[in-house]
Amino acid sequence: MKAEIITIGTELLLGQIVDTNSQWIAKELARYGINLYYKATIGDNKERMIETLSNGLKRSDLIITTGGLGPTQDDITREVVAEVLDLELVKSQEALAQVKSYFKQADRPMSDNNLRQAYLPQGAKIIKNNQGTAPGILVVQDNKVIVSLPGVPLEMKAMMKESILPYLKEKFLDDERIYSKVIKTCGIGESSLETKIADILREQENPTIAPLASQGEVKLRLTAKANTKQAAKELIRHEEQKLQGRIGEYIYGYDDDTLEKVVADLLWDKDLTVAVAESCTGGLVGHRLTNVPGSSAYFERGVVSYSNQAKQELLNVKKTTLQEVGAVSQKVAQEMALGVKNLAKTDIGLATTGIAGPSGGTEEKPVGLVYMALAINDDVKSYQFKFNGGRYRVKYLTAQTILNLLRLELLN
Amino acid sequence: MKAEIITIGTELLLGQIVDTNSQWIAKELARYGINLYYKATIGDNKERMIETLSNGLKRSDLIITTGGLGPTQDDITREVVAEVLDLELVKSQEALAQVKSYFKQADRPMSDNNLRQAYLPQGAKIIKNNQGTAPGILVVQDNKVIVSLPGVPLEMKAMMKESILPYLKEKFLDDERIYSKVIKTCGIGESSLETKIADILREQENPTIAPLASQGEVKLRLTAKANTKQAAKELIRHEEQKLQGRIGEYIYGYDDDTLEKVVADLLWDKDLTVAVAESCTGGLVGHRLTNVPGSSAYFERGVVSYSNQAKQELLNVKKTTLQEVGAVSQKVAQEMALGVKNLAKTDIGLATTGIAGPSGGTEEKPVGLVYMALAINDDVKSYQFKFNGGRYRVKYLTAQTILNLLRLELLN
Repeated sequence: MKAEIITIGTELLLGQIVDTNSQWIAKELARYGINLYYKATIGDNKERMIETLSNGLKRSDLIITTGGLGPTQDDITREVVAEVLDLELVKSQEALAQVKSYFKQADRPMSDNNLRQAYLPQGAKIIKNNQGTAPGILVVQDNKVIVSLPGVPLEMKAMMKESILPYLKEKFLDDERIYSKVIKTCGIGESSLETKIADILREQENPTIAPLASQGEVKLRLTAKANTKQAAKELIRHEEQKLQGRIGEYIYGYDDDTLEKVVADLLWDKDLTVAVAESCTGGLVGHRLTNVPGSSAYFERGVVSYSNQAKQELLNVKKTTLQEVGAVSQKVAQEMALGVKNLAKTDIGLATTGIAGPSGGTEEKPVGLVYMALAINDDVKSYQFKFNGGRYRVKYLTAQTILNLLRLELLN
Repeated sequence: MKAEIITIGTELLLGQIVDTNSQWIAKELARYGINLYYKATIGDNKERMIETLSNGLKRSDLIITTGGLGPTQDDITREVVAEVLDLELVKSQEALAQVKSYFKQADRPMSDNNLRQAYLPQGAKIIKNNQGTAPGILVVQDNKVIVSLPGVPLEMKAMMKESILPYLKEKFLDDERIYSKVIKTCGIGESSLETKIADILREQENPTIAPLASQGEVKLRLTAKANTKQAAKELIRHEEQKLQGRIGEYIYGYDDDTLEKVVADLLWDKDLTVAVAESCTGGLVGHRLTNVPGSSAYFERGVVSYSNQAKQELLNVKKTTLQEVGAVSQKVAQEMALGVKNLAKTDIGLATTGIAGPSGGTEEKPVGLVYMALAINDDVKSYQFKFNGGRYRVKYLTAQTILNLLRLELLN
């Protein structure tokens, strides 16, 4: 069964709103194991709506449209569906009753143009809308299903859940189930990761494995098909074990996990506290650690020591060190991490110092050069990195890297 | 000129990510007066990619694709573009040099599979990617333009701004000029703002005025059409003057201005320095102030005093104050702002303390209650706010508000 989503509305083509409807529907269809092969967006234009819907009918078995069911003149989805399917547009007493009842319940007067919403393609099933005025439409023709829902997310979602998804489940679903899991990695680039698992990627079949890079991390999406959800999960579990063996150290989490949440859970489990001394990241490490609810349990303080004065006063960095090797150096990173740990009396101290750019770089210390340090117990480890990109990217990658270094340390 | 966007990636069809790329591109095209008639989304599937791109070429003059340019086996946009346009896929020394130089700058080893990214359709113009490994492609055939960009939003946006939009402007835009300007406001909600300018909104014609609310700010997009850019600009200038008279105090900037950049410019102009004491914002105020290049000229230090201990040690907040009124209080905010200003010896001290939630609220001090203070010269001003929403939103609105309070103070 092939599905297609068509979202309708000129505001989508002007970029005035983000189309979150199609993402939501896509997720629901995936949960039900319905293959979505196409998404299309068009404006409130009759000709292009007809073209796109006709095209969809040639290649897909299920078409879900959103938008264009309102009472105004540019809401023409009803007309277009009728025309493409060669059906009459007729007044439906049932739809009229629903529109009227909505206004009565809302205690609002109904305008004449709401009457348009009671005209539907002949033989269409009416999809009740409990949240708004526009009834939805469901038509079956030549074994293909065309569903039209309003564009208001709240209304669309309720109608999908209450009517459309149960209908599709009843009518179409065979025993095949799709189950998907995202593995999140950090500390390795997309191509190096792919090289490490090249044979696994080459032999992939079921589950499929798709790498996906975003800022500071690479995800692997595993998707399995089987007759039961349990069997699909088992396929994923087996593949995941193989991947764990190869790239386990880079895997920080799954699905909706964030790196800061994973680090927070580790700190919580081990009952450890942390303090942060930031220079080039300017507060971003503290910001991310405190995005996790309950962070006051493990986050004691952060110091954004942008000036040398602040490094000396708040972190006990030695004046002589600053003079001898400069603020952007391994030694200063170490002194910052130790300093914040000792002053805050925490178990762990983190530090970042670097040149975020775009200016301030030299041949010896170029833009993107960053030193980090991690002080834990009586030990202090330090690291040198060279990141590429603009100021924000250097800050982000530095924060991502130090959080990942902390994660690895906590796992040992 | 008819444009079409094709976003590529199975993750989009599984609903795992929201397609924000196409909205961003749509907005930019609208700004340039380029008509976008279709958007399509397909997975990493050769057959359907060929079908969709071929279809697009029949009806549109400009096609922009995103995604599928990475180094891995399922990244096949290069192959598909070559096949649809009937071009050879050839190795480009220029593209190879760019990929290599990216890895060199990042001081990372390049894997063999990155070589795939150097193969481009014969005659394609290479679009430089300064943020990642995947070069973009621009091909002109039969007066139609096909642009392929990576799916990573940061990379795609930079390449659009640096290369594609200037190219389109140069090549295609005719005499009717659309000129658009965004007015950015802060410190007032969307409906209050609309009420203040209700008559102006009602009478809008050319330029049109579109309000657009986003987190912590409301924008007004003014769009004028005229025969020359100069005339369009003049129409905007006239309308802007009217708006300035009504809502001037809320306007913090225009177009790509950020609140932190505007504040940075004011600090720079007045030769003033600032230090920040953060509790509930966890480092976000420091992070934002240091996102501006050159921020070390005015940002001396930040202190994220999450614990009471840190508030006393690093900011000289009195133990008795903490005991009497609690950490989330007007008095503590004042002492934090004064403390950080005095210790850092800066002209200005900022402070935030509040309950970001989701837990930790009481009847007397609910989640979302935030106190802020601003110490300047011998004066300290404090403010109480109650924000709605989740943890991240409370943090963001607090940072936005204190930056805006600083902006207003600097203007006086």
